[in-house]
This record gives sequence, C-alpha cells and structure tokens, in this order.
Amino acid sequence: LKKSVLIVAGGSGLRMKNKTPKQFLPLAGKPLLFHTITAFYNYANDIEIILVLPENQIEEWNNLCREYNFNIHHCIVKGGKTRFNSVKNGLHSFKSKGLIGVHDGVRPLVSKTTISKVYDTAEKSGAAVPVIPVSESLRKLKGKFSKSLLRENIHIVQTPQCFKSDVIRKAYRQKFNAAFTDDASVVEKYGFKIKLVEGNPENIKITNPLDMVIAACLFNHLSS
Amino acid sequence: LKKSVLIVAGGSGLRMKNKTPKQFLPLAGKPLLFHTITAFYNYANDIEIILVLPENQIEEWNNLCREYNFNIHHCIVKGGKTRFNSVKNGLHSFKSKGLIGVHDGVRPLVSKTTISKVYDTAEKSGAAVPVIPVSESLRKLKGKFSKSLLRENIHIVQTPQCFKSDVIRKAYRQKFNAAFTDDASVVEKYGFKIKLVEGNPENIKITNPLDMVIAACLFNHLSS
Repeated sequence: LKKSVLIVAGGSGLRMKNKTPKQFLPLAGKPLLFHTITAFYNYANDIEIILVLPENQIEEWNNLCREYNFNIHHCIVKGGKTRFNSVKNGLHSFKSKGLIGVHDGVRPLVSKTTISKVYDTAEKSGAAVPVIPVSESLRKLKGKFSKSLLRENIHIVQTPQCFKSDVIRKAYRQKFNAAFTDDASVVEKYGFKIKLVEGNPENIKITNPLDMVIAACLFNHLSS
Repeated sequence: LKKSVLIVAGGSGLRMKNKTPKQFLPLAGKPLLFHTITAFYNYANDIEIILVLPENQIEEWNNLCREYNFNIHHCIVKGGKTRFNSVKNGLHSFKSKGLIGVHDGVRPLVSKTTISKVYDTAEKSGAAVPVIPVSESLRKLKGKFSKSLLRENIHIVQTPQCFKSDVIRKAYRQKFNAAFTDDASVVEKYGFKIKLVEGNPENIKITNPLDMVIAACLFNHLSS
C-alpha cells in the first residue's frame, strides 16, 4: 500500500518558556522538525510527507528550510485550533489512499524500526501504534487523595500511529470527544481495534525544556 | 519528628546487561549509590540512613566506600528476596520512631526540594509520595488488543515515599499482595490515605542502560 505521514507540529513555545515554537528549536544544530521529517524520509524515500503547521509559523518554517537548505519534499497544511482539528485538516487536504501515519512533530528520535513495525502491522490489521512499558508506579488522583493503579498491562503510547486511509478518514468524521487523547482513541471510538507494536525508548515527546536536554543527549548517544 | 530513610538497593545488573549491580555503576565518576545517599545527607545531615543491600553485594560496597573514601555514615541491612521483604528487613533492623522514608537506591537525582516536601507533608498527614504528571497517552492491554486510558488525573509515582513510623511498621505486617507495587500501596491497603506532593522530573529510576545515559546527562545539566 502507498504510504503517507501527517506530521503534526501544532505547539507554540509557551511550555518551553521560549518564543521559538518548540518544533523549531535546535537539536544537534538543526531545527528539531528537520530530524523528524528526515526519519520518515529515511524509512521510505517515496513516502508522502504532509506537515501540519499553525498558519502563523509557515513563513518562519519556509525561511528555515531555505536557510538550512532543507530539501526533503513535503506539503504544508494549515493546522486547526486543536490537535484533533489539525489532523482533520491534514486528512482533508490530500487525497492519498493506502496507509496514513500520524506523527508528533516533536518526536524527532523515532527509529526506522519503530516506523517500519507500525506501518507493517497497520497494513495487516488496519490500525497500529507503538508502545513502551511503564517502569514506574502509577496513581490516580481522587479528590484530595489518590489510589494506586496496577501498572501491569499499562503502556505508554508513542507515535507514529498508522491506519488504513478509509479507517482514519471515517473515524475523523466523528464529533470531538474529550476521550480523544490521540489518533488511536479516535479510531477506537469509531469501533476499530488497535494493534500494539514495540516502540523505541528514545522516541520521547518533547514538551518541556528538560525534554530538550534529554533529547540532545539521546541524539548524541544514538549517533555514537 | 526524627527522620530516617531506608535506601533500598536490591537490583542485580541483569537488566543493565552488566555484571556490576546497577547501583554501583559510575555516574559522574562515582558509584551511583553515593549520589543517592549524599542527596539525603544534604537534605538533613542528622538523618538516619539505612542502606538495604543484597547480602552478596555488601563486601563490594564496603570496598567501594574505602576506595572512594566515602564517609557519610549509614547502616547496612541485608535485603530480602523481593523488594517487599527488603523493606521489611530494613524496618525490623532499626527501632527509630518518627518519619521513615523509603527511597529507591537507583534514583540518584532526587532534589532536596522533593525530599523536603515529602517529609514535611508526611509529618502533617502521615503518608506522602512525590508524583509527576504523565505527558504521554496510555493504553491498557486487553488480550490481543488494547484500550485507551484517560491520562487525566494519572500520575507517575517516584520516591522517597515517607510515612510516620507506626503507620509503615503496621502496614508491613500485612501478607504480601500482588497489588503492592510500592510502599504507598502497602500503606494504602492497610487503610491509610496517601498525600501527593510534586516530585522533580529529573528524579528518574535507573532500570536500563538508556536510563544511565539520560541520568549522566541530567546530572551535568543540574550541575551546570
């Protein structure tokens, strides 16, 4: 099946305490998003790459591409107000059939093996996501106190999350629901079962300044 | 109230793919466990420190202390077969009253602020643990498939977990139960409510070689 990926880069710099959107921050000397796009290009150089960006960041992005001479082909789509709307916009803006992956722009350290497992499994089962085990204890808040949660069988979900195009397109016609924490939960609500594959532990989501420190360190580790 | 801490260092090197127990691996030039013990000494230099170690590691530990001239006073207690038994042994081997913290030996990056918040809150409420929010989506395995889990209100639990001595001593008289994933869950099963305080994100649990890479990087970051 033909392969596409929607790279969703919606974040502002707020949680990073930075004016630069986090997806443009430098990682190993290049904007973070370059690494993310390159990871998919390295997986399959004919993959269709759609980058979903907030409208007010598109000009800066184009400038960065020129400045760094970044020439992996990708289409740009305007993001929406929420992640749900951004993915929806992305799905509307191109007509590809086959397999559609959705990936967080701020996960630059996804491995080729992870991408490959997710796409292969989605090709067979229709929907697949990468997960890693939880190594720490978990608690659920209940009012002023909390209750311990059995971590057995609980997994941390990463991206890319990959689906057959008809499955994800139909699922995203649903109304938004607060239980939609990721694309798999949207597809699941639509009635589809999600297969899990093993992710790579370096594939962290960069959400705060400490994550950026860890990402730089993991990048060096993976390159050495 | 008088303060004590049980530092539980039960791990072998197996998950680290290393012959050296992970708590003895070097972090910034010193055995990891030195950093952990120093963190508690820096919080309160009159805190009673009890180190729970597997019997077959005690000699190596004593040699390391001599070799590195490590002279923060601590008592050594033989560990048990499981973490539950190790904590139990620790509680039996000293008679201190007051506040007893239990800390994972492989969390060398706990901050003074985290320790302080946990002990202060336990002094007021009887039982406190540090937590940090979950920033990623979670899924629960159900047979061959899985179900998305609302991460709202779910927290990752760290250590030290601190309790009034009578509370933890009585709780540890219970029979072992598979739901005992940490000390708070033991105390909770005994009928006690657990208060949550904010942990520090650097306070990671070192369980695999990648964690060691991240810890080294966080150590440099915190020292800079």
